[in-house]
Amino acid sequence: MSTTDRQLRVGMVGYAFMGAAHSQAWRTVNRVYDLPARARMALICGRDAGKVADAADRLGWDAYTTDWRELVTRDDIDVVDVCTPGDSHAEITLAALAAGKHVLCEKPLANTVAEARAMAAAAATAEAAGVRSMCGFNYRRVPAATMMRQLVADGRLGVIRHVRATYLQDWIVDPQFPLVWRLQKDRAGSGALGDIGAHIIDLTQYVTGQLITGVSAVTETFVKERPLPAGSSGLAATVDGAEPADGTGSAGGHGPATGTVTVDDAAVFVARLDGGALATYEASRFATGRKNALRVEINGSLGSVVFDLERLNELEFYDATRPAAEQGFTRILVTEGGHPYMSAWWPPGHIIGYEHSFTHQMRDFIEAVATGADPAPSFADALQVQLVLDAVTRSAELGSSWTEVEPALATVAA
Amino acid sequence: MSTTDRQLRVGMVGYAFMGAAHSQAWRTVNRVYDLPARARMALICGRDAGKVADAADRLGWDAYTTDWRELVTRDDIDVVDVCTPGDSHAEITLAALAAGKHVLCEKPLANTVAEARAMAAAAATAEAAGVRSMCGFNYRRVPAATMMRQLVADGRLGVIRHVRATYLQDWIVDPQFPLVWRLQKDRAGSGALGDIGAHIIDLTQYVTGQLITGVSAVTETFVKERPLPAGSSGLAATVDGAEPADGTGSAGGHGPATGTVTVDDAAVFVARLDGGALATYEASRFATGRKNALRVEINGSLGSVVFDLERLNELEFYDATRPAAEQGFTRILVTEGGHPYMSAWWPPGHIIGYEHSFTHQMRDFIEAVATGADPAPSFADALQVQLVLDAVTRSAELGSSWTEVEPALATVAA
Amino acid sequence: MSTTDRQLRVGMVGYAFMGAAHSQAWRTVNRVYDLPARARMALICGRDAGKVADAADRLGWDAYTTDWRELVTRDDIDVVDVCTPGDSHAEITLAALAAGKHVLCEKPLANTVAEARAMAAAAATAEAAGVRSMCGFNYRRVPAATMMRQLVADGRLGVIRHVRATYLQDWIVDPQFPLVWRLQKDRAGSGALGDIGAHIIDLTQYVTGQLITGVSAVTETFVKERPLPAGSSGLAATVDGAEPADGTGSAGGHGPATGTVTVDDAAVFVARLDGGALATYEASRFATGRKNALRVEINGSLGSVVFDLERLNELEFYDATRPAAEQGFTRILVTEGGHPYMSAWWPPGHIIGYEHSFTHQMRDFIEAVATGADPAPSFADALQVQLVLDAVTRSAELGSSWTEVEPALATVAA
Amino acid sequence: MSTTDRQLRVGMVGYAFMGAAHSQAWRTVNRVYDLPARARMALICGRDAGKVADAADRLGWDAYTTDWRELVTRDDIDVVDVCTPGDSHAEITLAALAAGKHVLCEKPLANTVAEARAMAAAAATAEAAGVRSMCGFNYRRVPAATMMRQLVADGRLGVIRHVRATYLQDWIVDPQFPLVWRLQKDRAGSGALGDIGAHIIDLTQYVTGQLITGVSAVTETFVKERPLPAGSSGLAATVDGAEPADGTGSAGGHGPATGTVTVDDAAVFVARLDGGALATYEASRFATGRKNALRVEINGSLGSVVFDLERLNELEFYDATRPAAEQGFTRILVTEGGHPYMSAWWPPGHIIGYEHSFTHQMRDFIEAVATGADPAPSFADALQVQLVLDAVTRSAELGSSWTEVEPALATVAA
Repeated sequence: MSTTDRQLRVGMVGYAFMGAAHSQAWRTVNRVYDLPARARMALICGRDAGKVADAADRLGWDAYTTDWRELVTRDDIDVVDVCTPGDSHAEITLAALAAGKHVLCEKPLANTVAEARAMAAAAATAEAAGVRSMCGFNYRRVPAATMMRQLVADGRLGVIRHVRATYLQDWIVDPQFPLVWRLQKDRAGSGALGDIGAHIIDLTQYVTGQLITGVSAVTETFVKERPLPAGSSGLAATVDGAEPADGTGSAGGHGPATGTVTVDDAAVFVARLDGGALATYEASRFATGRKNALRVEINGSLGSVVFDLERLNELEFYDATRPAAEQGFTRILVTEGGHPYMSAWWPPGHIIGYEHSFTHQMRDFIEAVATGADPAPSFADALQVQLVLDAVTRSAELGSSWTEVEPALATVAA
Repeated sequence: MSTTDRQLRVGMVGYAFMGAAHSQAWRTVNRVYDLPARARMALICGRDAGKVADAADRLGWDAYTTDWRELVTRDDIDVVDVCTPGDSHAEITLAALAAGKHVLCEKPLANTVAEARAMAAAAATAEAAGVRSMCGFNYRRVPAATMMRQLVADGRLGVIRHVRATYLQDWIVDPQFPLVWRLQKDRAGSGALGDIGAHIIDLTQYVTGQLITGVSAVTETFVKERPLPAGSSGLAATVDGAEPADGTGSAGGHGPATGTVTVDDAAVFVARLDGGALATYEASRFATGRKNALRVEINGSLGSVVFDLERLNELEFYDATRPAAEQGFTRILVTEGGHPYMSAWWPPGHIIGYEHSFTHQMRDFIEAVATGADPAPSFADALQVQLVLDAVTRSAELGSSWTEVEPALATVAA
Repeated sequence: MSTTDRQLRVGMVGYAFMGAAHSQAWRTVNRVYDLPARARMALICGRDAGKVADAADRLGWDAYTTDWRELVTRDDIDVVDVCTPGDSHAEITLAALAAGKHVLCEKPLANTVAEARAMAAAAATAEAAGVRSMCGFNYRRVPAATMMRQLVADGRLGVIRHVRATYLQDWIVDPQFPLVWRLQKDRAGSGALGDIGAHIIDLTQYVTGQLITGVSAVTETFVKERPLPAGSSGLAATVDGAEPADGTGSAGGHGPATGTVTVDDAAVFVARLDGGALATYEASRFATGRKNALRVEINGSLGSVVFDLERLNELEFYDATRPAAEQGFTRILVTEGGHPYMSAWWPPGHIIGYEHSFTHQMRDFIEAVATGADPAPSFADALQVQLVLDAVTRSAELGSSWTEVEPALATVAA
Repeated sequence: MSTTDRQLRVGMVGYAFMGAAHSQAWRTVNRVYDLPARARMALICGRDAGKVADAADRLGWDAYTTDWRELVTRDDIDVVDVCTPGDSHAEITLAALAAGKHVLCEKPLANTVAEARAMAAAAATAEAAGVRSMCGFNYRRVPAATMMRQLVADGRLGVIRHVRATYLQDWIVDPQFPLVWRLQKDRAGSGALGDIGAHIIDLTQYVTGQLITGVSAVTETFVKERPLPAGSSGLAATVDGAEPADGTGSAGGHGPATGTVTVDDAAVFVARLDGGALATYEASRFATGRKNALRVEINGSLGSVVFDLERLNELEFYDATRPAAEQGFTRILVTEGGHPYMSAWWPPGHIIGYEHSFTHQMRDFIEAVATGADPAPSFADALQVQLVLDAVTRSAELGSSWTEVEPALATVAA
């Protein structure tokens, strides 16, 4: 830990799955990295006073509030960390930026392109005043993913020909799984597409250094009607940290009340990248047996890489410049001190977990804020992802017709 | 071996990669399976007298000819095995059927839908006269693939939700790899799409028992100009058993003459199956590091299966009806006596190879012919694959627009 | 987090690799588990005042001291956590137990059987006074390892026939790697045998519920002379958190001073377990490419399990009671809420890392102390491991002759 | 196929599992390799006239006999291929060599050291007269295994430190599996040790180029009494091609008659190699879930290799001279034209199976015989394996005491 006394007082909005993951990262980051500022877990915010009080105590925040507007404007808060469902990202973030707070906002940046555009514009304005903003695509900071980016950037893969990316889960295969907020368009924006598809869109663009220019997509909702959640506990709490639905409708009836699923269960699309690569993408919550299976493979003229989030400490690298008889996919255990982010952790072979990607994210965010640099991915980067999501949705609505992705920069400029 | 004296005298046209693989299968099948007829390797045909004489000697055929028309009409031939490039399938096969010969034709059935339609019609006509025909989608007979089909047919996967299929190779990543016949549209019909894409189309339809109803596709030719092959030997012979191009153009110039690649290097598409599943398909010869990587994953409401041709003795099966804490992908070593086709081979754990799929194919073909049953896949089945290939091509030409697959039966009927 | 106000004030001795790992666990445990007491990171101890002050600040301890005797006797300390090299375990632990402190002692329990015997006896005496003690064989608390134990205990493996256990590393393959304390017998007791071999001895005995009765062993020191460490930084600090050697001899000469490696680089032995199983064990620091490869396979009459620490979120389970054609090793992703320790962490498929085993250990230790139960593994359990280590050493010294393991209980009783 | 007319007329004794595997290899070898002589499947021998007639017809041998003495002395036989159980190897082989026949003898060479010594001596004598002999350790000819040898020979692994070899099967885990000949000492010599342990002894010595100098061993027979086989068919025939026991004792009783298992079910031992490496070996028929799991890992100062017979087309190679951040186990698909033996087979990624190792063996044997070279492994090599087996047996009988392996050459010389 540095000898610095500089503190960054963090106020976090939300305390469910993402809130817990972020808390673990804020708690840990200065214990393992030597940084120019220390994060202080100052204030946590949630709508239910009892629950947020419990969360503050359990997760280790100094204080709590039920009013996010208070949080984003208090003088003793330097950083606002937005961990709420997507429907409130824009409002909270815009207020925080307006109040001069540095902002870390969970992905997807927003539920609509319009919101994301507004947020990116606000971030650009705030940046001029020294305010930093970052979107939480944490998987960029899995060491093996960061290493993929380095290999591509160093030219080790040559010209990229193919990207194939899947993010597969199976937590709603059971038709009796309740209609949690992640299955409601007004709360979540979209389903598998925005929740997990956004990750593979960002990750593959980051790793290749190329942007998706157009897509042809199909989406599907396999189970169109689901029981409403019974309350704040039960299945909902056991799955993905999801909060229950608003409860509208839970009062009625003799059988269990049901509601309509308004988001996609799965989205598949083919795409072209601006460097000439062909790509396939699939995001699904109906891939039985796949729990958190983000898998990316990239083939270039000189080599290939494969990454699997369920084995996130490993990277498979194929180097086609090696002697022919010795070529093969090399399983690199990305746990050496020389690997990205790993010098702070354990000896080689002692693996890290999912949560560490957040710690790495906080490390880079703190460093950027403390040194006055711009962290990545920026809101503009996240807007670009949103534009891809939008193109996917439009293509699916228009019978899979080829749909070009609007350029993010032009959009921001406009 | 059975005590039968009944012989099936086989005449094979072609002696390159497929010819060698079929020869090994014809030679072996009656040595390991007890069948109602014995195959006799009677006659082999090729255009070059010297080469086909060598092939007859090396591969163990009784005699050879350079005239396929003689082969398909000789009285002492019962079965015609068509192993030529796709541009001659229709002509040879139609002549053989007309001569009353049973026909085994390599895939893809033809280079065009029109040819395939004619072949399927001829096969239907011939069938009434007791003549059998079959298309060589040999991967159906890899035991693990057959077992996938059985699991789906037994309802073990429940409702199929997702199919993801890739067939990846990398033998033309080098832009200096020559313009062999497989890269020429007039010989091969298409590129990766028809050569290897056809396999995953057939295999996934076979395993799921569902047909592809529509597609949205992108194809690409990454390297558009390649050197012409120098002759009948050299690289061409070392890669995939490919025969050299016709040599048109090889006469000219001081530098190496080049020619235009007229087929796709890669094809990707999303699809819907008639049972409600979403699917993604990718066929590529530019996937560096992937040598013969046919990989199929199918997710259903009750389970999933994964198959990888580079580890063809294995099947991964996820059974979601097992106790939650014990669920996982089970790596089944498909080498038990009770597994499809395996009773004839070695003890458990003693693996088989690529060529065995052809031996299994010959086993089923001989049995069907000898017992008067119809072997599968029929020419009608193969026509249906051709219709999917055609839909993919048309979609790619029309900006990835959604393109429905014509029903094969209606086509044949018409 | 529970609403309890009960605190357990922890004093930790040592702040290197194990100290950092334990700190992360003490810091986290009450944030994720609801427990009857809260750990307070009260006091840390090390010999160098400057370094321990830095460690206290970095790792988050309230205070520090350079006098472990003060630490073990202070009234405001409830728990003593011993993270020093093995040569000081006995002295510190005995003093702590005498002072009525609960003790968590890192493994191996001691450097000699005599010390371990004294510690186990002291623990037994202290237990009568309500003082708890536990040895830090943390790998028992990797969820997949705990699940192995449950499967065996539930009879799912039937009669155990085979145990094969390896713990392979490669951090001293380079003969220029310096003579750190882990390579010195007077500090470490033994080499690979006690450092990592102890883990697989404990783990396999725990999982099978059987004890090793006899061994036949070979040990080897491949590189017998190594350079002395240059100082407190450098390679030594980068490898396995090792502290530098004492510096004896570092004064001399013009070339780098060297010293003699006094411990084993590798130990291999065959063994019998008291339930009738045959076993093989191997611990090595010379297994090039193996970083932290603790791998255990157990075969029983009804099933088998395989565990690999480099993929610690996975357990392979073979259930021979399943239908023959469906048998295979099932890769269970041990990340479900129903899996041991996992309800507190992330959704399924979001993996945990090495450090989590320590958090689970602290959880069970806190619970035992708070509820007055005896935590496992006890010092008696750890003494039994020490007796196996001793038998291995004696067998190796006596030309691999079969050497019986003394019973731990009898030893303690005497 | 070569244009040669030179024939090698083969007479094979035995027609069970090994007989079928050898037949497939003799039938195939000249179809895929261009060799200076052609094998002719001339004569097959077995004790039961009806069965051997069937085998001749099924496997494709020109003629059969029930008298092996006739076979080894007939003028029209050039090569004798001995595929019987081990108790008849010496008698048949000695007679064949005396008759001037080239001999290929299955492993293990004999049931006793004395027999093996006599055979090696006879082979040395016969060699002077131009008669070739070879022992059938076929796994040396799995391309990935051959490649391991090349890597070691080329110095790519540096100084060998560790060998760990296991050959695990599970076909007699069921105590009701009958007492086939492989479980009888007078027929098989030993159990798992000689049947499969011999393979890993030979393979590791071949790959490392080092010999085992001493061992410390434990063996076990877990199930000591088994039912006698009911007859010539039934379970016995379904498992490993085993022939039934002699039937002694099958006459008696009302319940199923049983007999005593007189061989080991499992053997484990530690060893030293003459180049300084430590080694562990395990052979078992009680490793539930392991079907034919021959697995070898070798660690050297510069690299490591891993081979698994159930995935015999793959070799894992760790090259410690690569940049640190890129090191890892490379999964080489050993199917390239440049890999050992592979130029004759299919394109890259099209895998081969178990039986191909025999075809490769026949290729090298034919070439050696035709060119007057000495094939390997020689009978002297096989005698050395027998001496290791003998040392293992003696060590196990003497309480695992360290037992040195007698030098084979000295033995032969004497």
